[in-house]
Amino acid sequence: MIENAKVAVVGVGNNTSALVQGINFYRSTGSLVGIQQPQVNGLGVGDIDFVAAFALSDGKVGKDLHEAIFAPPNNFPRLDTELRPSGVTVQRGLTDVTEIRRVADALRGSEVLLYSAPSGRTDIAEAYAEAALLAGVAFVNTTSDPIARDLSLLERFQEAGLPLIGDDLASQFGTSVVHKALLRLLQERGLTLVSSYQVNLGGTEDFRNLAENPDSKKQSKLNALGADRVQLAPLGYLPHLKSQKIAYLNIEAQGWGETAVSLDIRLQVHDPSGAAGVNIDLIRLAATALRSGRGGYPTEAAAHLKSPPGTAV
Amino acid sequence: MIENAKVAVVGVGNNTSALVQGINFYRSTGSLVGIQQPQVNGLGVGDIDFVAAFALSDGKVGKDLHEAIFAPPNNFPRLDTELRPSGVTVQRGLTDVTEIRRVADALRGSEVLLYSAPSGRTDIAEAYAEAALLAGVAFVNTTSDPIARDLSLLERFQEAGLPLIGDDLASQFGTSVVHKALLRLLQERGLTLVSSYQVNLGGTEDFRNLAENPDSKKQSKLNALGADRVQLAPLGYLPHLKSQKIAYLNIEAQGWGETAVSLDIRLQVHDPSGAAGVNIDLIRLAATALRSGRGGYPTEAAAHLKSPPGTAV
Amino acid sequence: MIENAKVAVVGVGNNTSALVQGINFYRSTGSLVGIQQPQVNGLGVGDIDFVAAFALSDGKVGKDLHEAIFAPPNNFPRLDTELRPSGVTVQRGLTDVTEIRRVADALRGSEVLLYSAPSGRTDIAEAYAEAALLAGVAFVNTTSDPIARDLSLLERFQEAGLPLIGDDLASQFGTSVVHKALLRLLQERGLTLVSSYQVNLGGTEDFRNLAENPDSKKQSKLNALGADRVQLAPLGYLPHLKSQKIAYLNIEAQGWGETAVSLDIRLQVHDPSGAAGVNIDLIRLAATALRSGRGGYPTEAAAHLKSPPGTAV
Amino acid sequence: MIENAKVAVVGVGNNTSALVQGINFYRSTGSLVGIQQPQVNGLGVGDIDFVAAFALSDGKVGKDLHEAIFAPPNNFPRLDTELRPSGVTVQRGLTDVTEIRRVADALRGSEVLLYSAPSGRTDIAEAYAEAALLAGVAFVNTTSDPIARDLSLLERFQEAGLPLIGDDLASQFGTSVVHKALLRLLQERGLTLVSSYQVNLGGTEDFRNLAENPDSKKQSKLNALGADRVQLAPLGYLPHLKSQKIAYLNIEAQGWGETAVSLDIRLQVHDPSGAAGVNIDLIRLAATALRSGRGGYPTEAAAHLKSPPGTAV
Repeated sequence: MIENAKVAVVGVGNNTSALVQGINFYRSTGSLVGIQQPQVNGLGVGDIDFVAAFALSDGKVGKDLHEAIFAPPNNFPRLDTELRPSGVTVQRGLTDVTEIRRVADALRGSEVLLYSAPSGRTDIAEAYAEAALLAGVAFVNTTSDPIARDLSLLERFQEAGLPLIGDDLASQFGTSVVHKALLRLLQERGLTLVSSYQVNLGGTEDFRNLAENPDSKKQSKLNALGADRVQLAPLGYLPHLKSQKIAYLNIEAQGWGETAVSLDIRLQVHDPSGAAGVNIDLIRLAATALRSGRGGYPTEAAAHLKSPPGTAV
Repeated sequence: MIENAKVAVVGVGNNTSALVQGINFYRSTGSLVGIQQPQVNGLGVGDIDFVAAFALSDGKVGKDLHEAIFAPPNNFPRLDTELRPSGVTVQRGLTDVTEIRRVADALRGSEVLLYSAPSGRTDIAEAYAEAALLAGVAFVNTTSDPIARDLSLLERFQEAGLPLIGDDLASQFGTSVVHKALLRLLQERGLTLVSSYQVNLGGTEDFRNLAENPDSKKQSKLNALGADRVQLAPLGYLPHLKSQKIAYLNIEAQGWGETAVSLDIRLQVHDPSGAAGVNIDLIRLAATALRSGRGGYPTEAAAHLKSPPGTAV
Repeated sequence: MIENAKVAVVGVGNNTSALVQGINFYRSTGSLVGIQQPQVNGLGVGDIDFVAAFALSDGKVGKDLHEAIFAPPNNFPRLDTELRPSGVTVQRGLTDVTEIRRVADALRGSEVLLYSAPSGRTDIAEAYAEAALLAGVAFVNTTSDPIARDLSLLERFQEAGLPLIGDDLASQFGTSVVHKALLRLLQERGLTLVSSYQVNLGGTEDFRNLAENPDSKKQSKLNALGADRVQLAPLGYLPHLKSQKIAYLNIEAQGWGETAVSLDIRLQVHDPSGAAGVNIDLIRLAATALRSGRGGYPTEAAAHLKSPPGTAV
Repeated sequence: MIENAKVAVVGVGNNTSALVQGINFYRSTGSLVGIQQPQVNGLGVGDIDFVAAFALSDGKVGKDLHEAIFAPPNNFPRLDTELRPSGVTVQRGLTDVTEIRRVADALRGSEVLLYSAPSGRTDIAEAYAEAALLAGVAFVNTTSDPIARDLSLLERFQEAGLPLIGDDLASQFGTSVVHKALLRLLQERGLTLVSSYQVNLGGTEDFRNLAENPDSKKQSKLNALGADRVQLAPLGYLPHLKSQKIAYLNIEAQGWGETAVSLDIRLQVHDPSGAAGVNIDLIRLAATALRSGRGGYPTEAAAHLKSPPGTAV
């Protein structure tokens, strides 16, 4: 019987809440609903133990992980599963590179460090990666900060026999997944795209940040898809939606004889679930790669990432 | 320079209107909008000449093809293209097997017979297939009547060096195409389907017939897709929609932690355009197969057919 | 302090389930959510006691009312309220006019008889009305059977000093309410209606009956609204929806310069809640009218009925 | 027979394009489609002559009015009506109060000055009002700048026997009209609002301005409606929509027993048509009030204005 993966996590936001609760849910129910891969190299969905957690907010630090995941501004719902105290107390995360040693010490006993903090602080992400190197732990970067794309860093993980997975998590099922699938379908069937847009509404802290600081790369990413006729409306932060995202997609196209084809889609989904559904695969992949001594970037991770090594920083 | 394909058509309904107008449109504009395959074995979209047409209604027989395609109950819109008289007078279609000889004589000079009458009269479809055999013409069956699935018939076409394509046209872009693509996407991403339904509204004569005589096979076809949780609401015949189809799809699923994922889609499309966009490929395939002496069923047609040879009758 | 109204009910379907559960819910929580009239002549929403109930199915007769309301094919959800045994055992309803006397005896002690059986059995509805007359009890007819519109019956209730309310309950909030409000809005603002349609999907037994036996009057009722351009698509019975109704409305109109205006609406609602939200007012009205000796039809009921006395049978 | 109203207009944007084209359309076709009031005090929809026009952009000044209304960034569609040269050359609008006299001279012969420039330049709006006073012309302010709400200005128009109508045009049919109607309907039927939001997408220059400089008052206006649970998502400027506006509304409510009621609405409408459909009434009202010597604010205008005299500045 395979041993559970031992995971440390940076960031105790909605995504971590979804991941922690979900693992507990699947372990206690045996359900496989919503699961892409029941087994990754022998590890099941419930075969994960959290052994350390780092956060910055006073409302979370010092609390048991199973309590901290419900502290505001987290607003992912309580899943239907009983959570007993985890025994893991949330530690203060690092805010300065001088603390790398402290974090490395705290990582002893972990196999994987899941970096699930907000994007935008590359220096902090790098510091945690250094701590992982020091502690001999695999590193999974879910943010858009360039860590796995940093070739010298990747090389050092490889040499140390430590897996490094990243960057920028692709959600299991979100607006982009649906939008791309429909645009691809149009193309396959020979229809000609006239125009398309996407409206995203949500109520998480992440959403608020993105609404206030629009991601300038997002439009260009859509264009890269070959769809220069796809427009993004500004994100709408609507607090009452909590961790739900509502998206409206419109696609106007032309078929035979230039007659009109219209598609209007409304998608409703829990954003943190989309992240957890992918994180569960990445941490199992990282843990099993570590155990078999495969350092560096495991190419099986590519489908789950928006910016794997080799893509532009 | 390749010669135009010479096509005879049975049935002068909306699908034929869309096909005839569209070919004229593409030939005069050079547009490639809405076209899946600009060239099929060297034949372009405009490289089709209609040389004979058969219909049954008094409002169509005896008229020029370019006039008959607008006779009621046809209600496909007039495309933005000038139609001069075609020189092809619509002939009375056969209603009795004794007329096979007459039809065969009328087919001399054609390369392809496109059978685009309403489904449900297998005896009539077979009679036209016999006429095609007699006249040495390829046969394309767009109806759900079993013609290409009739193995003895297929064998006779093969021996005669005549292509036989069918059965049951798969629309270029319709409700099923979108529904299947989204259900497949769900599955690929590991989501679990909870329930799904499909509502179809339309205003053509075909739609009226289907609404009054529901296709009992349709639900089972959807089930065959592996989606026994997909329900079909009864078709709604709404005359004011004319040749437009409006479909509502709903998909309820569960993702990570059994959290809810909802997709609501509204699709608006011209049904006859979806048929014409596929017929254009089938007749070019049939004509070029005939010219190169390839009798029987050309496997390239499979993607465009719901019930190719080998599937259940 | 006013005494609770004493109510007997015919029919233990979803509507009765919603009513019985809801009264218990409002009584125990003090909530006023979803309530149109907190007080009707001094009676609050929770001031109702059920004292008798009649049903026909073996799965319901002989059971406590609080158990019978959950027997199949009922599928209205369990509200978040604890239901202790009601002490009311469901009696076998009448199927023959010879049983009027038995029912009348069973009604002793009631103030109001709420007739909430399926529409379409006028003879049965009349027999219950006769029993109410015999027992000196007010009568509320929620079905489309003509009871309050039967002038001789109405006169007899009036002479007996007994209230008679009917016919045909208008839901508190359903497809028609929304559709009419939007069509009226269009008219008020000077827009010109081009076309409109309505699609209704549901999963109750009532819905199945209506889907199999379409109500021929329904289209004419819509027309009476002055909207001869409004089409009804056939009802779709989708069992998985249970007591939820999903409706799609479309309105196409023209404004200034004949430019297009489009409205697409999706409505999701629990049908039985719409009935209960109106029944609660009708039974309070009937009970208080009875107490003050007002026989016949109380005009305050008109807003809640589709076919009050004086409208066509 | 009544004489046509003589109208001067400030601003040659989309709203003026819709108004000018529409009047010509209705005059030539006799259509009454989309018209709220066929007659206002004897003036029909086509009984308007434009006699002067002012604009600032080089692409419009010096051009015939019937040409200038199609100059970019205007993108209201061409209506199906032939426009011969109007004989009215667009004059340069004022940018400085020293030009009031020039404008007043240019207004001789007009009965009504329609002020249809972008909102936000109260000084300019006031200067045009002064010119109207000087020239003895009625004034209609469609912007949110406080003109009719300026009591001393209103008094001066009243004393001069000149009508003054404003401020802030309420569209004939737009997102707010539909949203308010549905929220009111909910309230009338006793449902309890849980949450609601509104998303607006459009492609006009006005829309771009509003998207870049959000109207801080808009949320508070919605709140004033009594619906503090209504959220506005940020406006989305999507150029390809041109003068069309697409709005998504969502309303979540609770009915009987706190069961859920959901309404999702998609509205598609031409914004400038909504403005023209109201301007046509205001200018006819202003012209006929002037003719009968009724100075000041005609109360019949109230239904068409968001901020009539007496409301807060």
